[in-house]
Amino acid sequence: MKLIENLKWRYATKKYDTTKKVSEDDLQQIKEAIRLSPSSYGLQAFKILDIKDKDIREKLKLASYWQPQITEASHLLVFCGYADVNDGHIDEYLNLKADTQGFDVELLKEFRNFMKVFIEGRKSGKQVWTAKQTYIALSNAIAACAELKIDSTPMEGFEAEKYNEILGLSSKGLKADVLLAIGYRSDEDKTQYDMKIRKPMESLFEIV
Amino acid sequence: MKLIENLKWRYATKKYDTTKKVSEDDLQQIKEAIRLSPSSYGLQAFKILDIKDKDIREKLKLASYWQPQITEASHLLVFCGYADVNDGHIDEYLNLKADTQGFDVELLKEFRNFMKVFIEGRKSGKQVWTAKQTYIALSNAIAACAELKIDSTPMEGFEAEKYNEILGLSSKGLKADVLLAIGYRSDEDKTQYDMKIRKPMESLFEIV
Repeated sequence: MKLIENLKWRYATKKYDTTKKVSEDDLQQIKEAIRLSPSSYGLQAFKILDIKDKDIREKLKLASYWQPQITEASHLLVFCGYADVNDGHIDEYLNLKADTQGFDVELLKEFRNFMKVFIEGRKSGKQVWTAKQTYIALSNAIAACAELKIDSTPMEGFEAEKYNEILGLSSKGLKADVLLAIGYRSDEDKTQYDMKIRKPMESLFEIV
Repeated sequence: MKLIENLKWRYATKKYDTTKKVSEDDLQQIKEAIRLSPSSYGLQAFKILDIKDKDIREKLKLASYWQPQITEASHLLVFCGYADVNDGHIDEYLNLKADTQGFDVELLKEFRNFMKVFIEGRKSGKQVWTAKQTYIALSNAIAACAELKIDSTPMEGFEAEKYNEILGLSSKGLKADVLLAIGYRSDEDKTQYDMKIRKPMESLFEIV
């Protein structure tokens, strides 16, 4: 299976070749895989920032324990879940649904109430909930990169509060959840030759 | 790109054909995609339960707001993050790393201390952290299914505490984080004909 081959090929790249850039065409495909990712209720309660500004990337590196991928990879994507999911977001989704599928949004009135009750019920758990959705999109972005033979590094090692500050996320109703650096591995990255470490099937799965 | 085609093909299946079963061969490939999924530090701090017992699936359905996929899909996978990540798990990973890559685990002593400090620092956030990792594996499982033209339904609508009880997860050091029902769509599932609802690129991405 293609996906398995691609997952075997990829690894968390430690050092990027700073001279190689991901093409705009490839980037659009990676973004399309993110856009098509499933999410809870189909809400897509997140936004992805594509950080092109070099000064900002330098600042983000300081907030990421100086990890070189932040500035040396071709692109840096910051996956940001909504800090809160409110009625406006639900209406936005339902309007998009009605528009896309060609019917009157009024027909969704009951479903709207159902969604609101369920989502409000998550209370303080909403931030965790939107963060989890970004991991599905992250995973597809990694798989898309691998299919295009583009390297990537998923990164959790950063100070989210500082990211929020540097990128002004609070005023946008967002918070930084996870990062993906993408680009092309450097020949000097020795970790590319390491054997992949994975548990055997029998310790990862259990039949009940 | 293959992944994009597959993501376009898939949808959250509402009704399964109860007469069609996923073959053991295909199931092994889906499990392999899960096994190869990236995870934080490579720890794979989760386990996936493949629920074959019919009585248990009936009980789980009651704990899942009676959603029919729980019993009607060919297979039900329960993604369970570790309830706690402790020193034993770190040692298990480092031993596997040393074995796989062929060196003495003693060489990882410093890295071991580094991992322990970082992971302990997550404190109560550890449960959320392991849950997020399961979403990466979930996403690859969905993509693997789609590549094999197998339908699937990612599901968050269940009572985690009841799942923990029914499956005896606490004694296994696990907690139920997310589900994936897999199988083949029923002809009667009208949602398969719905247009996919996705935000346009420009409202999902922002260039900084």
